Amino acid sequence: MATTDALETLRVRRDGAVLSADIWAPPMNLLGPELVRDLVSLLQHAEADASLRVLVFRSADPDYFIAHVDVERIAAYRQEAARLAGEPSIGLLFRHLSASRLVTIAQVAGRARGAGSEFALACDMRFAARESAIFAQPEQAFGLAPGAGGIQHLVRLMGRGRALEALLSADDFDADLAEHYGWINRAVPAAALDAFVTALAQRIAGLPAGARGLLKERVDAIALAPVSEFRRDSDLFLEASRDSDAKRAMQNATRRGFQTREGELELGHVIADLLAR
Amino acid sequence: MATTDALETLRVRRDGAVLSADIWAPPMNLLGPELVRDLVSLLQHAEADASLRVLVFRSADPDYFIAHVDVERIAAYRQEAARLAGEPSIGLLFRHLSASRLVTIAQVAGRARGAGSEFALACDMRFAARESAIFAQPEQAFGLAPGAGGIQHLVRLMGRGRALEALLSADDFDADLAEHYGWINRAVPAAALDAFVTALAQRIAGLPAGARGLLKERVDAIALAPVSEFRRDSDLFLEASRDSDAKRAMQNATRRGFQTREGELELGHVIADLLAR
Amino acid sequence: MATTDALETLRVRRDGAVLSADIWAPPMNLLGPELVRDLVSLLQHAEADASLRVLVFRSADPDYFIAHVDVERIAAYRQEAARLAGEPSIGLLFRHLSASRLVTIAQVAGRARGAGSEFALACDMRFAARESAIFAQPEQAFGLAPGAGGIQHLVRLMGRGRALEALLSADDFDADLAEHYGWINRAVPAAALDAFVTALAQRIAGLPAGARGLLKERVDAIALAPVSEFRRDSDLFLEASRDSDAKRAMQNATRRGFQTREGELELGHVIADLLAR
Repeated sequence: MATTDALETLRVRRDGAVLSADIWAPPMNLLGPELVRDLVSLLQHAEADASLRVLVFRSADPDYFIAHVDVERIAAYRQEAARLAGEPSIGLLFRHLSASRLVTIAQVAGRARGAGSEFALACDMRFAARESAIFAQPEQAFGLAPGAGGIQHLVRLMGRGRALEALLSADDFDADLAEHYGWINRAVPAAALDAFVTALAQRIAGLPAGARGLLKERVDAIALAPVSEFRRDSDLFLEASRDSDAKRAMQNATRRGFQTREGELELGHVIADLLAR
Repeated sequence: MATTDALETLRVRRDGAVLSADIWAPPMNLLGPELVRDLVSLLQHAEADASLRVLVFRSADPDYFIAHVDVERIAAYRQEAARLAGEPSIGLLFRHLSASRLVTIAQVAGRARGAGSEFALACDMRFAARESAIFAQPEQAFGLAPGAGGIQHLVRLMGRGRALEALLSADDFDADLAEHYGWINRAVPAAALDAFVTALAQRIAGLPAGARGLLKERVDAIALAPVSEFRRDSDLFLEASRDSDAKRAMQNATRRGFQTREGELELGHVIADLLAR
Repeated sequence: MATTDALETLRVRRDGAVLSADIWAPPMNLLGPELVRDLVSLLQHAEADASLRVLVFRSADPDYFIAHVDVERIAAYRQEAARLAGEPSIGLLFRHLSASRLVTIAQVAGRARGAGSEFALACDMRFAARESAIFAQPEQAFGLAPGAGGIQHLVRLMGRGRALEALLSADDFDADLAEHYGWINRAVPAAALDAFVTALAQRIAGLPAGARGLLKERVDAIALAPVSEFRRDSDLFLEASRDSDAKRAMQNATRRGFQTREGELELGHVIADLLAR
């Protein structure tokens, strides 16, 4: 597997038709240019290998699945997405992932906030460790709106009221509440999660692939928002992130512990403090 | 706050950027011309005050949030809505509320039936007292269909099967079942509800407002039905309410305790008796 | 009730405005030409009888609600549907059922897989025995995609992630998980199910019928997919079922116990074994 050996931020292993990728971008799995670059390479590799059917995403960091984007390198990570999405947008990259012929499963332990949540939402299914998984779309705290598909997916999965609660509060949701609201398929006890996801991935991979692409197409015709809506959210995020208020909010937060491993463990609780002028 | 001091049926208090309105239209918080008039005034006031960000609706009556419309004054309350909605329709008034730049939260204790449920559904979020809140769309019992957005919201929030159950049965749903079906965001123990909603309202109000309007627009582009659909339901309700069968059903029910405080406590259970010819 | 006396596979009884049909097509309630023929006759009879308002579907077999289609008689059962649907398609027949002026309730005990699940999904509401009901869309195991509305309904009821889990895994879902995901309205203890559904059916039948058709129309304008989408899924199923791989998979499975009463009790668990080359 030459093309995946070179990945810096993904530890890949194959078991039959299932490819598992453990995210490992210390110190906290920020979605920066390196991780986006590697996700693009992995996808290109996997989609080109007709013997692969299922992709499972895990994290090698027990506290962070994907923390969120690296707010200091927005232009750079967006550019890496263009290689596969055709445009500098992780929203469009994530939509490409959703529309892939591959079946994708997010196995989430630890924190999945912002684009980390949106990456999980872009996968076909999401299963999370009941004791440790945390989901959030904290963009509003910085005067931003989610730009990588979070709005498109959350509103369709949980309805207007619950999506507005999650999006406007910018708060942390634990796995049980995320399951209750439909953010994820199921919360599973951490000790059982790996076996559960592995069995499901192998089961799906073992069934005939004949109508799988067709099935996903029919589902996505109903439930996957068109490219234009993902592009619009992506553009609005980029535009707002260049606003001086948003920049100041991100700088203030970063000075106080945002984008640090310790500083974000309880981000939902401390986010207001991080923003103090 | 000159404009809200004059309100007869709403007791308003302000805490920072959060405005709370307690509904108080004795004897049972019917949605009649006075309450609609005051809701219009409140909204006009609040939307014009740039320092306000969040509106919380509560009831001062522990048994009734909003009972439903005053069936004896349909033309009059509709006319009051025209001042803000541009047309005599509470469905269009409620849609205006949903599309407002203000974040709106319904804190429901007691009964929210018919237009009371629809008012809560028009708010951005709904939290209800586990022990006392009751939701219903009883229109079918009178040969009517909900005309103020109930169909539009319930089908999108809970799907076809559960919405049809609620709409066709005209029955009462307690807070737990309403939460389970997605009618509300969450059922919260009554003793904890006020603190929960207050904290959420203050949290939202304290975050930067920069992208809030944009976020609501993007959400509503997905999940808020167009004006034309609200208008159609509203017109159909008005038309059906003029039908002689519906009029007779409402008159019979009123003679037997409908539109009285005691007579509606268990409306879901007794509604068939109220309709006897 | 001359027209329903002649039904071979449906045992019909009437109680006021409620007509109940118990499915009885031994040995396992396969959906073959006889059952489709009788469902068409029942619907034609019931829709023509203005005094009927509610249709309840039950099974006389405690282990099977409807097992799935008879894979050896696909052309024949499709042809029977044409009598009511105008085209040889049970997907279009089921959509006709959904759009009927009659209120339809599926009371599910035992297994409802494939078209059995899709028939329940086509009803206005679904209530299932907590201890015995099992739902599945096993089509992917044969290289097929559901062709009778399962995709259209499941995605709208449970969202993209959970629908993909159910559709791609082809696995069995018990009543509690089906309720949690929104596949059904509620799981009810088996001992209480009949009384629950009977009371609901009689309640609905006892309310004025004036606005009932209008209400269903307004709901379906939001949540019932257009005929063209049902037709497309139906055509794709037929096409794929003629593929040599799918035929071989069905033949292999049938040799090993598929389409037998005993062989399908735990179909979700044994389906991979049934497919062995």
